[in-house]
Amino acid sequence: MSDAAGDAILVTYAISGPDPAGTAEAIRVEQTIEFPYDLAPAWIQEQVVGRIVETQGSQVTIAYNPGVVGGDVVQFLNLLWGNVSLFTGVRIVDIQIPDSALAIFPGPRFGVTGLRALFDAPTRPLLCTALKPMGLSPLELAGYARTLAEAGFDMIKDDHGLANQPWAPWAERVRVVAAAVREVADATGRHSVYMPTLNVPADRLFDAAHEAKAAGAGALLVLPGVTGFDAMRVLAADDELGLPIMSHPSFLGSHVVNAGQGISHGLLIGLINRLAGADLCIFPNYGGRFSFSPDECRDIQQRCTQDLGGLRASWPTPGGGMTLDRIDEMLAFYGNDLTLLIGGALHRGDLAENARAMVEAVRDR
Amino acid sequence: MSDAAGDAILVTYAISGPDPAGTAEAIRVEQTIEFPYDLAPAWIQEQVVGRIVETQGSQVTIAYNPGVVGGDVVQFLNLLWGNVSLFTGVRIVDIQIPDSALAIFPGPRFGVTGLRALFDAPTRPLLCTALKPMGLSPLELAGYARTLAEAGFDMIKDDHGLANQPWAPWAERVRVVAAAVREVADATGRHSVYMPTLNVPADRLFDAAHEAKAAGAGALLVLPGVTGFDAMRVLAADDELGLPIMSHPSFLGSHVVNAGQGISHGLLIGLINRLAGADLCIFPNYGGRFSFSPDECRDIQQRCTQDLGGLRASWPTPGGGMTLDRIDEMLAFYGNDLTLLIGGALHRGDLAENARAMVEAVRDR
Repeated sequence: MSDAAGDAILVTYAISGPDPAGTAEAIRVEQTIEFPYDLAPAWIQEQVVGRIVETQGSQVTIAYNPGVVGGDVVQFLNLLWGNVSLFTGVRIVDIQIPDSALAIFPGPRFGVTGLRALFDAPTRPLLCTALKPMGLSPLELAGYARTLAEAGFDMIKDDHGLANQPWAPWAERVRVVAAAVREVADATGRHSVYMPTLNVPADRLFDAAHEAKAAGAGALLVLPGVTGFDAMRVLAADDELGLPIMSHPSFLGSHVVNAGQGISHGLLIGLINRLAGADLCIFPNYGGRFSFSPDECRDIQQRCTQDLGGLRASWPTPGGGMTLDRIDEMLAFYGNDLTLLIGGALHRGDLAENARAMVEAVRDR
Repeated sequence: MSDAAGDAILVTYAISGPDPAGTAEAIRVEQTIEFPYDLAPAWIQEQVVGRIVETQGSQVTIAYNPGVVGGDVVQFLNLLWGNVSLFTGVRIVDIQIPDSALAIFPGPRFGVTGLRALFDAPTRPLLCTALKPMGLSPLELAGYARTLAEAGFDMIKDDHGLANQPWAPWAERVRVVAAAVREVADATGRHSVYMPTLNVPADRLFDAAHEAKAAGAGALLVLPGVTGFDAMRVLAADDELGLPIMSHPSFLGSHVVNAGQGISHGLLIGLINRLAGADLCIFPNYGGRFSFSPDECRDIQQRCTQDLGGLRASWPTPGGGMTLDRIDEMLAFYGNDLTLLIGGALHRGDLAENARAMVEAVRDR
């Protein structure tokens, strides 16, 4: 339980307001002992409380003893953004985790290299689309899924809001759609997978994942903002399950979209998703229906893919109102280690034709 | 599956920015079909997409068909704050749930009346404190717990950051501290309970709750921002468990502290916690270490306690740097349906003496 600098978890906070130094003093206590500093035993002051190791203007880096995490991802999240989430004017802008502390994170099971092999896509971007709109029956959704699989999409996911609605109850939908996608994959010999959303009750989550696999689903969509990042970590680490996992940013937006407060885009949607096992990280692309800037998207991409101990890279998966005519631009911006996620736009005109055009657009990349 | 106004879930958004009407149009589609509106079948446009039912300046109320929730709390959360969490300038300021849709929420098992009976406290506020600082051993924490139980505290909780740190591993801590508090309770005949924190891995959560109960714990501290609100719902609805649940706001701050974005304090920390089964809702009191204002605290109190179908009221549990000299002021502000949460301040001077003074201060209320 060394607290030597080399073993520490480093968190850098950008602190606005009149007294960054005072706020940093508060944070290092708040995120650890949450107790009057002067009343704590000396060894706890020295080893358990965070230590300010660098101050650059309003950016302060605090070193935390990995013992504070105690080996659990839930407490890692709590250390990062527990009580300090209730402060105004504090944003986490960097996190450095020593290799010794990385061991608690499974990281992506497949990642960039694994999914390239799985989908026989040595260099091209991957293609994903979403089944929608809510209201359709399982058979109608399966019809779309069949068309999209026939066109050659790699991943056909549920829209993230599909849960257990009366129009397409979860178990029936998963069974019917998975069967349709499997049938096409068997006929074409191409590995297209159906990815149901695990937008299911907390006490059903792990069983539902296995049921989905048994029904023929080939990947899983997880909503860590709703179900918790650690539930995704459990799914990713489940060898018996062994399916690719895509993370959706539902309920996570408030942590990133407020300037000066929260966690940086790259850290939450890139790094934390990746640590918790997301093979693919959805985020709203710049210039779509949401507010992310090109720089914020780049930040996410970098945190998905940059060196991180031995952890595999996650696939940046920008979506949120993307259209076919943006594919070239997106590939120029992100490069080929990219999953293109286009949903509703494929339905404007002929679905099969649009889907084929999209597959065509990336085939020789 | 009627979408009559009386059955609808009503969500009111305060929308900043130049075009509230346009944003509201986007939200009602984004939170439901997430699909080009004009391409959706007419019945889906009419029944599945949200309907704008009231506009007052920049506040817009959208009515959602309860079918969109499909009976699951996870999808209720996703409907409320899924993709729209990624918008800037949108804040949820009211939620109205018809009785027919309230059935999916257990609400508090004990609530105000239930805990008054449990702790034989017909009129007085309840008393809670936290075991800290992190770094102490199970025996040291148990020593504090014993002192606090002997003084007459109702609930003695783990500090929320106590997880499975090497200094006090979860299972050992729970066993040792629970035994100490039980011993005092048996000796005094007063119902003091130990409340361990369920800051445990996602695949251990439900088992850990039962293990805590078996070890003698009498209540549970849950971190819904980390483990998900639905996990708390499952714990609250577990008849075999049947323990009071306290909710801690770790990781939830970003949703409430940013003006103009997020979810109002009362709705997230009062209403949603209460729906998901929190008997007691911790929040940072005004004038403490955090940023909440008196109005925001009042908002939380109201959402904890106001009529809500047949659901029991939750206990407002303001904390975060409270001291003994604020008790009178807090009781004047909140009234007696209040759980006083004082932690570190009890350690300034003599713990036993301070604890007895606090019990004394509320005994005859």
